Amino acid sequence: MPDNNLIYGHHPVAEAIRAGKGVEKVFFQQGLRGEMEKEFRHLAKENGIPLQVVPREKLNKMVRGNHQGVVAFLSLIEFQSVEDVLPYVFEQGATPLFVLLDRITDVRNFGAICRSAECAGAHAVVIPQSESAPANEEAMKASAGALARVRICRVRSLFSTVEFLQESGVQVVATALSGRSVPLFEADLTLPTAILMGAEGEGVHPKLLKMADAVVKIPQATDFDSFNVSVAAGIVLYETMRQRLV
Amino acid sequence: MPDNNLIYGHHPVAEAIRAGKGVEKVFFQQGLRGEMEKEFRHLAKENGIPLQVVPREKLNKMVRGNHQGVVAFLSLIEFQSVEDVLPYVFEQGATPLFVLLDRITDVRNFGAICRSAECAGAHAVVIPQSESAPANEEAMKASAGALARVRICRVRSLFSTVEFLQESGVQVVATALSGRSVPLFEADLTLPTAILMGAEGEGVHPKLLKMADAVVKIPQATDFDSFNVSVAAGIVLYETMRQRLV
Repeated sequence: MPDNNLIYGHHPVAEAIRAGKGVEKVFFQQGLRGEMEKEFRHLAKENGIPLQVVPREKLNKMVRGNHQGVVAFLSLIEFQSVEDVLPYVFEQGATPLFVLLDRITDVRNFGAICRSAECAGAHAVVIPQSESAPANEEAMKASAGALARVRICRVRSLFSTVEFLQESGVQVVATALSGRSVPLFEADLTLPTAILMGAEGEGVHPKLLKMADAVVKIPQATDFDSFNVSVAAGIVLYETMRQRLV
Repeated sequence: MPDNNLIYGHHPVAEAIRAGKGVEKVFFQQGLRGEMEKEFRHLAKENGIPLQVVPREKLNKMVRGNHQGVVAFLSLIEFQSVEDVLPYVFEQGATPLFVLLDRITDVRNFGAICRSAECAGAHAVVIPQSESAPANEEAMKASAGALARVRICRVRSLFSTVEFLQESGVQVVATALSGRSVPLFEADLTLPTAILMGAEGEGVHPKLLKMADAVVKIPQATDFDSFNVSVAAGIVLYETMRQRLV
């Protein structure tokens, strides 16, 4: 990641976190104890930012200046909150369409999904703070710039987000092969909907799958593995547009 | 590309081409004239294989053995012919579904499209011999192995293939934004169909677009650029499956 996405030093990093300036991750020096450690652990936790403890040498390699034991990656984008976005969407008279990504760690898939989400007019892409691909330059490139346009909400827990959406009248539709799965085109996607996509291989977390209002599968003509997750997301977004148009 | 995909020397390369052993590309030494040059130019042309003239030093870097002025990349897969595949599909009583790729040079997109084509039960992916992504290890990986399962037809000219398909009762449906475009879901994809996808940026060649029986566009909710070409191909394949299932 280029230098201009890095900030360092006690006060600059603390202020950036407090100001909600899209701090992506905090690197904290191993062995640094006392008030400063307490402060950053608290700030990171409060603001849902991963904090990683690393040897001083790693920090020295990251920046040339006096880092004082703390370095942070700034995100390319400003994260928004689902709690702010959803009422806004309802106020606009639009039918909510969200994309929830459960452990999509591949940067290219993340970027491609953001691109499709922007094309399909999704109101936000929601990612958990851990086990998600970073919103970095590579993701931006894979998204063809869509990452700068679509709203991204980074949340502490997808479980709470799913609960919040359901309580607000948004159905959560998971894509997975399970006993409950119905063909995608049989789900009613004209309702306020959050599409839940899981990681390739592992799929949607079983607990999230259980919480989902509906589980859909994309039809296949062969027994071959499955569609790539970014292709699958594009298909579900297309089907949503189709149903809302016809 | 690893060494086991390379062959070299006058007779080994000539025999591999004559035996139809999936020679992907021939590298021929600059300045080599006479019968050998004539022979390889003729073989390459007859078999629709790109021949590139390169300095001797480049060949020396490719192989350690005595290459005698000619080195060839072997494809990972065996190409098939549309003229063989189509009658076979009709004989099986299936409704033909082909994917034609016009200048898709990105290996990852090519691989991802092959993966979707295999999931959707497409009978073949058709690529022109020039300006196509190579069917190599990277494409195989991006296809999650589908490249080894789906039929790939490499043709000299997509124009002739489009003509052949149309004469055989297969409609060619191009994906593009043009005056003629109708929303994807308004096209009748229950008919024997070849889906024609163009390169990102340039799109389908204007002459091919003119030849197409129908031109479809994937709906978008915003004015943002467009879907990634491999996502778009997945969407068109999904819509075809949906129409054929409901």
